[in-house]
Amino acid sequence: MTASRPDPRVGDLSEGQILRRILDRLGPGRAIVGPGDDAAVIEGGRIVATVDTLVHGPDFRLAWTSGFDLGWKAAAVNLADVAAMGARPTALLVALTLPDDTRVSFVEALADGLRAACEALAPGCAVEGGDLTVSETLTVAVTALGVLDGPPVLRSGARAGDTVALAGRAGDAAHGLALLFSRFVRDGIPVPVDDAALDEIEREAVVAQLRPAPPIALGPVAARGGARAMMDVSDGLLLDASRLADASGVTIDLRRAALGPEAARALAGGEDHALLAAFPPGPLPEGFRAIGVVGGRGAAPVTVDGAPAEAAGGWDPYRDWDAGRG
Amino acid sequence: MTASRPDPRVGDLSEGQILRRILDRLGPGRAIVGPGDDAAVIEGGRIVATVDTLVHGPDFRLAWTSGFDLGWKAAAVNLADVAAMGARPTALLVALTLPDDTRVSFVEALADGLRAACEALAPGCAVEGGDLTVSETLTVAVTALGVLDGPPVLRSGARAGDTVALAGRAGDAAHGLALLFSRFVRDGIPVPVDDAALDEIEREAVVAQLRPAPPIALGPVAARGGARAMMDVSDGLLLDASRLADASGVTIDLRRAALGPEAARALAGGEDHALLAAFPPGPLPEGFRAIGVVGGRGAAPVTVDGAPAEAAGGWDPYRDWDAGRG
Repeated sequence: MTASRPDPRVGDLSEGQILRRILDRLGPGRAIVGPGDDAAVIEGGRIVATVDTLVHGPDFRLAWTSGFDLGWKAAAVNLADVAAMGARPTALLVALTLPDDTRVSFVEALADGLRAACEALAPGCAVEGGDLTVSETLTVAVTALGVLDGPPVLRSGARAGDTVALAGRAGDAAHGLALLFSRFVRDGIPVPVDDAALDEIEREAVVAQLRPAPPIALGPVAARGGARAMMDVSDGLLLDASRLADASGVTIDLRRAALGPEAARALAGGEDHALLAAFPPGPLPEGFRAIGVVGGRGAAPVTVDGAPAEAAGGWDPYRDWDAGRG
Repeated sequence: MTASRPDPRVGDLSEGQILRRILDRLGPGRAIVGPGDDAAVIEGGRIVATVDTLVHGPDFRLAWTSGFDLGWKAAAVNLADVAAMGARPTALLVALTLPDDTRVSFVEALADGLRAACEALAPGCAVEGGDLTVSETLTVAVTALGVLDGPPVLRSGARAGDTVALAGRAGDAAHGLALLFSRFVRDGIPVPVDDAALDEIEREAVVAQLRPAPPIALGPVAARGGARAMMDVSDGLLLDASRLADASGVTIDLRRAALGPEAARALAGGEDHALLAAFPPGPLPEGFRAIGVVGGRGAAPVTVDGAPAEAAGGWDPYRDWDAGRG
C-alpha cells in the first residue's frame, strides 16, 4: 500500500466494492463460474459450492429468532443458492461461533432446524461436517454443496424473447421484517413476537422472514426445463432482476399485474429466496409463473410495464439499527 | 427439553461434549465418514470437505497476526485437514465477518495470505467463492474441498505392527505461542512482535505459530504410499496420537529419541498441523520419519518408550486469557 492510497474502512464501502478490491488478489480461480453467480462451479463442472453467514445483530435478533429458526434459515438461504444454479443440494458444512453463555439447548434446536430445513426443502441433503468455536458473536456460516446433472444455469444466459418467470414467494419475507421492526420493538429493544397481535397474513409474513421456504426442488426442474438464466431473489425482485439483466446484457420488463395485489412489496422485497429465471418462449415448468419478458438491452436494466424502474436504496434495518442486540 | 434436564452453557462443556449433544439431531448423514475424522467424505467418496473458523480473541490477536498471516493460517489449517484424509485440496470457500472499522487494506492482505498459502502449500487450489458480512467480531471461516484418487485415509485403520510416522514440524508452533504470551504482552495487552528480541530458533517458532506450513502435498503421497491411518496434529502429538489409537483400537508407542532434542515440546505442542500416519512395515514414503510403532491395545492409548503417557490438559492461552483483545 502506498502512502497516498486511501484505505477506507469496511463500513464505508458496499460488499460489492470490497469484493472488487480483493478479487484480483485471490488470483485466477479455476472455477468455471466466478463470483457474481450464486455459487461457484468446481470439480470439472459437476459440483456447485456456496457459503453464507448469518451474524447476530446484522442478520437476526434472538428475541425474534429461535435456535430452530436460525438453523432453518441458515440452511434455506444456502440451499437456495445451490438451487439457483440448477443443482441439487447434497451436503451442508456448518461452522458455528458461539458465545460462552449460549445454552446448549439453543444449539440443539439450531441442529434441529438445520435438519428440518434439509428434510423439508432438499430431501437427500444433510449436514455432513462442521466446526464449533467460541466467540463473542453468535454466527452460523453454512457451506452448501450440490451436484449438477447438466451445465450450470448462470445469470448471464437470458436472451431477448425469453419469458421471465418466478417460483416461490415475493415480498412476504420483507413484509414480515417490517412487521417485526414496527410491532415487536419496545424502547429500542426487540421483544418476542406475539402471534395474537398479528392477523393470518401477517403471521405468514413473519414466518416467511424467520423460516423462509424457497422452492429448492424447482432449481433442477428449471435446469431440465431449459432455463437459460437463473438466480435466487435475496435482495428484492427489482434489484436482483437488474443484476440478471446486466449479466445477460438485456432489459427485463416485468408485468405489475403478474405480481399480485401487493406488487410494490413484491418488487422491493427480498429474502424470500424465490427463483427468478428466464425460459425460452413456450410452456413453463410446473411451479414457475410468468412475470415478464426479456427484451433487447435498453437504457434501463429493468422496466415495469414498459417504464424504467429503479430498485430502492436497499434499506437494511438490521444493519442500520444500532439499538439493543435482542 | 424437559424441565428436569440440565441445560448447560456452551462455555461449561468441551467442543466434543457439545458435538455429541447435537450430532444425533442432525440425522444420519450420507457421508461415508462421519464426524471424528478430519474431513467429511461426500459425493460418492470422491470429494472431501472440511470447515474451520478462526475467531478474533480465542484464535488470534491482531497485535501479533497481520491480515496476511490470518489469511495464510486460515487456509493452511483447512488444507491440512484435507491432506490428512489423503486428498488433494482443490478449492476454498471463505466466509469473512468483519467489524465496520476494519481497514480494507487488512482485508486485501488477508486475501493475499489466502492466495499465498494456496500457491505455496497446495498449488492448483484457489479461493473459488466466499461471503462478506458485517459483525462485531472478526472471523474467518474457511471451507476446504479436495479430491481423492483412492479410498480416504481414516483415523481408524492402524494395525498392530504398523510404523507410526510423522511429516512436518512438531512443537514449533506451540513454542511460538508460548513466546508470544511470555514476551509480547504488556500490562495484559498483546503488543507487536519485536524480531530483534528473538533468536533465530525463536523467530522460526513464532512464524510456525502465525504462518504454519503443513506438508499438504504429503497427504496424497501417504495415501498412495499405503498409509492405513492418518490425521493432522492440531492439538498436540500425544493427544492426537491417542485419538488415532482410540479410533483404531490400538496402542501407539512413541520413541522419545525420534522426536528430537525438544521431545517434551513435540509431544505436547499442537498447531503445526504435521501429518501423523500409520504405515505397514517397510520403507516410508519420502517426507515421513518413523516416530513409533503400533501395538495391540493396552491399558493406555499412547505410551512413550513403553511407559503410559497422558496428554496434558490442553491449556489454551487464547481462550483462557481474558485481558485485552489486541
